Amino acid sequence: MKRRDVLKKVGVGAVGLGAAGMALKPRKARAKKVYNWKMVTTWPPHFPVLGEAADKTAEWIKEMSDGRLNITVYGGGELVPPLQVFDAVSSGTVEMGHGAAYYWAGKHPATQFFAAVPFGLNAQGMNAWLMAGGGQELWDELYARFNLKAWPAGNTGVQMGGWFNKEIKTIDDLKGLKMRIPGLGGKVLKKAGGNAILVAGGEIFTNLDRGVIDATEWVGPYHDSKMGFYKAAKYYYSPGWHEPGTTLECMVNKKKYEALPKDLQAIIDTACAKSNMWSLCQFEAKNEKYLVELVEKHHVKLRTFPDPVLAQLKKYSKELLDELSAKDPFTKKVCDSYRAFQKTYEAWNAISEESYAKLKHL
Amino acid sequence: MKRRDVLKKVGVGAVGLGAAGMALKPRKARAKKVYNWKMVTTWPPHFPVLGEAADKTAEWIKEMSDGRLNITVYGGGELVPPLQVFDAVSSGTVEMGHGAAYYWAGKHPATQFFAAVPFGLNAQGMNAWLMAGGGQELWDELYARFNLKAWPAGNTGVQMGGWFNKEIKTIDDLKGLKMRIPGLGGKVLKKAGGNAILVAGGEIFTNLDRGVIDATEWVGPYHDSKMGFYKAAKYYYSPGWHEPGTTLECMVNKKKYEALPKDLQAIIDTACAKSNMWSLCQFEAKNEKYLVELVEKHHVKLRTFPDPVLAQLKKYSKELLDELSAKDPFTKKVCDSYRAFQKTYEAWNAISEESYAKLKHL
Repeated sequence: MKRRDVLKKVGVGAVGLGAAGMALKPRKARAKKVYNWKMVTTWPPHFPVLGEAADKTAEWIKEMSDGRLNITVYGGGELVPPLQVFDAVSSGTVEMGHGAAYYWAGKHPATQFFAAVPFGLNAQGMNAWLMAGGGQELWDELYARFNLKAWPAGNTGVQMGGWFNKEIKTIDDLKGLKMRIPGLGGKVLKKAGGNAILVAGGEIFTNLDRGVIDATEWVGPYHDSKMGFYKAAKYYYSPGWHEPGTTLECMVNKKKYEALPKDLQAIIDTACAKSNMWSLCQFEAKNEKYLVELVEKHHVKLRTFPDPVLAQLKKYSKELLDELSAKDPFTKKVCDSYRAFQKTYEAWNAISEESYAKLKHL
Repeated sequence: MKRRDVLKKVGVGAVGLGAAGMALKPRKARAKKVYNWKMVTTWPPHFPVLGEAADKTAEWIKEMSDGRLNITVYGGGELVPPLQVFDAVSSGTVEMGHGAAYYWAGKHPATQFFAAVPFGLNAQGMNAWLMAGGGQELWDELYARFNLKAWPAGNTGVQMGGWFNKEIKTIDDLKGLKMRIPGLGGKVLKKAGGNAILVAGGEIFTNLDRGVIDATEWVGPYHDSKMGFYKAAKYYYSPGWHEPGTTLECMVNKKKYEALPKDLQAIIDTACAKSNMWSLCQFEAKNEKYLVELVEKHHVKLRTFPDPVLAQLKKYSKELLDELSAKDPFTKKVCDSYRAFQKTYEAWNAISEESYAKLKHL
């Protein structure tokens, strides 16, 4: 901060600048605009990892812009309700938003591919599709229709499959099951005869505890512990077939973004990339500790869905994507890109990550 | 760029600023230093992904700093030889460097933990250890001894196990084998009776072709294709037990870094995070295409090391880490942190990524 004071005193274009330290070319000073922006989020205020990712993105942008782009972050409901983030940013009521694209399925079904697809890409795959496989370009094309621009800005990694009050032994055990499960995963459960119930985060525990719902998914051990689900359900299932690497998004009103100076545009883009990595790292570093606590301290029974159940759910997921593609050409375009990428990614993954992962058991 | 011209004309602190667009507070102008820095790298100039990552990091830093931090990137040997990058940045001959920390094992054995450890963490694990598991703090502590500060700035993902002219059926097939394999992997091979040979990138093909070496590892299908190894060896092995997720590094002379304004410090840090993700995405998106080409067009025989061979190599790797730890307290401190993290990470990975990866076979 001292340098700044020195510079202020030395003043604009002063020839004495070089004397302040290293021999550097002074640059012609110019007034810089300060942007005071708002970011609304779908998360409770400062919610672990998810809300923190929004806070940190704003903090990094402020640091990198030397205070020229100040973003005030609002938790869901503080300024607009969580599920109105998309509209608020699209219309320009606020400049930025943070959430997950599958919340906007009602705006366009293709949004869901930019968050999570049942039996789809994991975190590394989502990043690769978005950053090097054409995914970001499709996302840009879709969101431009809504005057939005978004980036991946976080990832949960492979989620858990959820909390149940009975064991899931056959696909029939899902029949009639009232489960809190959003997005495409919920539609797959419906195909299996279950009831996908929408319950806001803050109400899940009470509903599960009172038997209003029979089961729920949320994120993974770290978050699920904080929600206290172990007090209301005893079976905790893996893997999260419905959300294998959910991408969080940071979005900006496109017109306002394009009106920013190029340096601030690049700063937002890069802060999102860091946030994307930061979030996944938090989950990967913390989940095991909480999982052990759930099992050892709270006597949660850890289970894996049986293969025949997963195979059937996978079949339903494929059907669902086929149906979505048949309804709308742009959704088909996104789905085709996603599926083609997943095919080659998984083939390489089988040789690389999967082949390597086995060595831990040697 | 038009905005800048407008601002220049309007001048410092002009009350008319608001008229240029949105109603924003004008900020007192001040001259900003321009830093012209050099980045030396261990890679051939503009080398795919690895050299490109250095180029892109510099490009992003320039964009985000609006040209206040201009970094000229030099390929290995253009300004200093590849393996003098560490010394050149440490001494301040140049400001920045790009490489991989295991090249500096001669400076301190603990450096190797910040690049790749045989049977160690994959890319997602390395990121999580560094960003959320205490790894970065240890890296900072180590590099501060050399007046350096470094960040993860790229990752290869799980590498391939290498090119061989004979099949590896038992651990005895490694005895007497002359293989180009650097770092800790080379030391493990030595324990198995092989000879780890150091050969610079540009000479590997010729040495393999002429039988000076019997085998070589490099990176993965994308890079290995470009090197033409398929013309000199027919067996291509997975997985890369010796480099399961090699972290690339971007380093800065610590004194020069600390003398930068805070915004430029944050810009370097964040550009590295993006570069880290960008590189891994390139490998993950491209490897499969080249692997298919190697097998189908160049008739390369794809093989997996037998489990008993891998189990023995894993045993040797454990011994090697124990020996390294016994020699030096700081190496022990890093190794203990790494191993403790790997243990919990792998336990969670077994429930999450590994459990999910199996579903592709349903």
